[in-house]
Amino acid sequence: MDQIKIFLDEKDMPRQWYNLAADLPTPMLPPLTPDGQIVTPEMLAPVFPRNLIDQEMSTKRWIDIPEEVQQVLYQWRPAPLRRAVNLEKFLKTPAKIYYKDESISPAGSHKTNTSVAQAWYNKQAGVKSLTTETGAGQWGTALAFACHVFGLECKVFMVRVSFEQKPLRKIMMGLWNAKCISSPSMETQAGRAVLAEMPDTPGSLGIAISEAVEAAVTDKTGKTRYALGSVLNHVLLHQTIIGLEAQKQLKKVGIKNPDIVIGCAGGGSNFAGIAFPFTREKIHGAKIEIIPVESAACPKMTKGRFAYDHGDIAAMTPLLPMHTLGSHFVPPAIHAGGLRYHGMAPLVSQAIVEGLMKPQVVDQLHSYEAAIIWARTEGFVIAPETSNAVACVINEAKKAKKEGKEKVILFNLSGHGLLDLAGYDKYLSGKLESSKVPHDEIKRSLARVQVAHKAPARKTGKW
Amino acid sequence: MDQIKIFLDEKDMPRQWYNLAADLPTPMLPPLTPDGQIVTPEMLAPVFPRNLIDQEMSTKRWIDIPEEVQQVLYQWRPAPLRRAVNLEKFLKTPAKIYYKDESISPAGSHKTNTSVAQAWYNKQAGVKSLTTETGAGQWGTALAFACHVFGLECKVFMVRVSFEQKPLRKIMMGLWNAKCISSPSMETQAGRAVLAEMPDTPGSLGIAISEAVEAAVTDKTGKTRYALGSVLNHVLLHQTIIGLEAQKQLKKVGIKNPDIVIGCAGGGSNFAGIAFPFTREKIHGAKIEIIPVESAACPKMTKGRFAYDHGDIAAMTPLLPMHTLGSHFVPPAIHAGGLRYHGMAPLVSQAIVEGLMKPQVVDQLHSYEAAIIWARTEGFVIAPETSNAVACVINEAKKAKKEGKEKVILFNLSGHGLLDLAGYDKYLSGKLESSKVPHDEIKRSLARVQVAHKAPARKTGKW
Repeated sequence: MDQIKIFLDEKDMPRQWYNLAADLPTPMLPPLTPDGQIVTPEMLAPVFPRNLIDQEMSTKRWIDIPEEVQQVLYQWRPAPLRRAVNLEKFLKTPAKIYYKDESISPAGSHKTNTSVAQAWYNKQAGVKSLTTETGAGQWGTALAFACHVFGLECKVFMVRVSFEQKPLRKIMMGLWNAKCISSPSMETQAGRAVLAEMPDTPGSLGIAISEAVEAAVTDKTGKTRYALGSVLNHVLLHQTIIGLEAQKQLKKVGIKNPDIVIGCAGGGSNFAGIAFPFTREKIHGAKIEIIPVESAACPKMTKGRFAYDHGDIAAMTPLLPMHTLGSHFVPPAIHAGGLRYHGMAPLVSQAIVEGLMKPQVVDQLHSYEAAIIWARTEGFVIAPETSNAVACVINEAKKAKKEGKEKVILFNLSGHGLLDLAGYDKYLSGKLESSKVPHDEIKRSLARVQVAHKAPARKTGKW
Repeated sequence: MDQIKIFLDEKDMPRQWYNLAADLPTPMLPPLTPDGQIVTPEMLAPVFPRNLIDQEMSTKRWIDIPEEVQQVLYQWRPAPLRRAVNLEKFLKTPAKIYYKDESISPAGSHKTNTSVAQAWYNKQAGVKSLTTETGAGQWGTALAFACHVFGLECKVFMVRVSFEQKPLRKIMMGLWNAKCISSPSMETQAGRAVLAEMPDTPGSLGIAISEAVEAAVTDKTGKTRYALGSVLNHVLLHQTIIGLEAQKQLKKVGIKNPDIVIGCAGGGSNFAGIAFPFTREKIHGAKIEIIPVESAACPKMTKGRFAYDHGDIAAMTPLLPMHTLGSHFVPPAIHAGGLRYHGMAPLVSQAIVEGLMKPQVVDQLHSYEAAIIWARTEGFVIAPETSNAVACVINEAKKAKKEGKEKVILFNLSGHGLLDLAGYDKYLSGKLESSKVPHDEIKRSLARVQVAHKAPARKTGKW
């Protein structure tokens, strides 16, 4: 019998994160202020602690994981690498489908990999309280857990549509003493402004970020900072433990590199986590297809523009060089709340421009179809976000079948869907709708993107 | 650093189940008909397939796990043995707290260990469709999964209070194509009779079992059988894989036997799963405290009577020798639906009579307190049933502290509570009530228990 669960001993858990910025063929473009100046560490100081700002700007290839962070991660890491043999059989594919199971963390997703690190660095810097936003609730839950571990207060602005669809998430955050608020809220100027203009908005991550940043920088104690669950370099860095573990685990079953690496991508963090260590291999000559999968509800990689844009609707954040649909874009209220962000992480965006990765897009109807196939073959209920990755995995496995090739496909199972069963119910009862956004709407939103600081075109890669 | 997760290789998964009936000092009392005759295999044939009836009556010590059942169990087994170091630190106890994590199965609990086996045996016997009841929903979900794996139809009668408190469970069963019905229902004679007498009843497992058995035996195709998630010998047998794995895993960290073994006990199956292999060690001279933990809402082991009683309200089942509060007993609508059964498994009951085990009782307020402590130290959300075991673990760890003894405590984490967060919410907002049942109510119910076939007193053990 083939081994279908590959564990790593605790002593073999990676001790360092991998920083893709050190290996990208062209240096990263810096964040800019609205008037085009390069953002300095000092400018970010009201928002983030200095140690994380340094990490955000670092080009060091390997960065040590602090001992205390490792201790917390041990509670569930190393995460198992598993093989989806039942799905392979169902698809009659010669492909071997492996996946990292990140659903096993306390919060049920990969998000704890960075929330624990961020809470620790903030604690070191003397911060007492963190604010953040959350889409589907995965990130808010993960930060609530991490803040509890290190004794920080935590306030979470949760995108309204998810807040209403997923009441259990709020309870879970409450377990760890976090305060969870529906966004847009009346607690911030940014929230009040949005409510005045669009009282019925389902909310968006762009709005919730504005609220969370405002709540941090206007706090009078000076001991409150903001934490982001994706997009930024240091967040993606913390997730690379996923891919680094996967490399060790694949080696245990005699696989040097997979042929295809897949992850769903909202802001890009779980995708980067599994993909970046393999992106390094690709830069060094390995032949690997690397696929970030986005939702048709928010297709910034396949239909957006690579440009400087704000990370939030109220322009509280610097301009970042990224694939974007515009910071005012409000995607439809799909169940995969984590994929509703208007922009893609700068590191992922640049890797796409360099030709190292090739994004794909999935409609909500296909992602749920994939999730049901997964539940009926592999037996587990996956998060709506994750199901976008699985839809792509199924396509690639079918392609391998057509080509008669025994490809190794690796993907990241970013989280479980046990708190998201309402979407499954809707799909099974035939009430779920396509998540495609009309072309005109995207065009209108893109027209508002800052063109003054359009990111320069990059070379297209040799990969 | 101490190892806190102990994995077993797939090749080391036990290949046989352990049957405690082979080692109990006194032979088991047989099930009886209402007029006192010993139940024959033929009498059970309309309810169960012959292969499971044989297993139910077997006194063979080791029973092979069929190859195909093993293949399905591999999807998540062997389950990890974990150590709760954070809880130990929080309690400042010298005790070492280990637990089997059964929450990792597709259905989220230990129940899949037997549902897969039962579905397989039924399939072998030519059965096309299974009926069952479920309390909290763990068993219904597990049987839905297993029936899907082997292509059987599945109908689940879910105790009304749980059906209403836990709508996500129904969705999950639907994922695997099972039909889930609120019990008491109008679909059966038993259900209609109860509704006529008590239209507002929260339901009970005793009622739901009557409905499920009736639905199976009255099915005109003759290809429908009934499956039970606990209580019966063959069900407990299938769960022993938990304790057998734990023995191998403890050995890996140099522990021959734990000092204390703990499991929550509704019908007795998860408890038996972890406890029986160690009960065997105890019979052979090892010094181990073995503690089944029941809910104050349904204290059959500590306040019930060891007597012959029916397993269901409508007396569809044979009389079983067990600790019981009477088959008409309807416990309050606590969140730990799995602990609301009026009787205890005959095998566990006899082991108690023999002095091999000593039950404890926990109030709902204490179990939720324990669950919150668990979530805030170990980081995971456990099932309301499991929290009763954790409350006992915490008590025993405190006792070890007082005594200054470095005891090894092993318990079974029977399931996660991600679909049961409503109960947590109620506790945290101070709305949860004590689950204690008035003494008079228990007395009244016990008065209705069949005394004609009172089980004979057994010797009290030397253990």
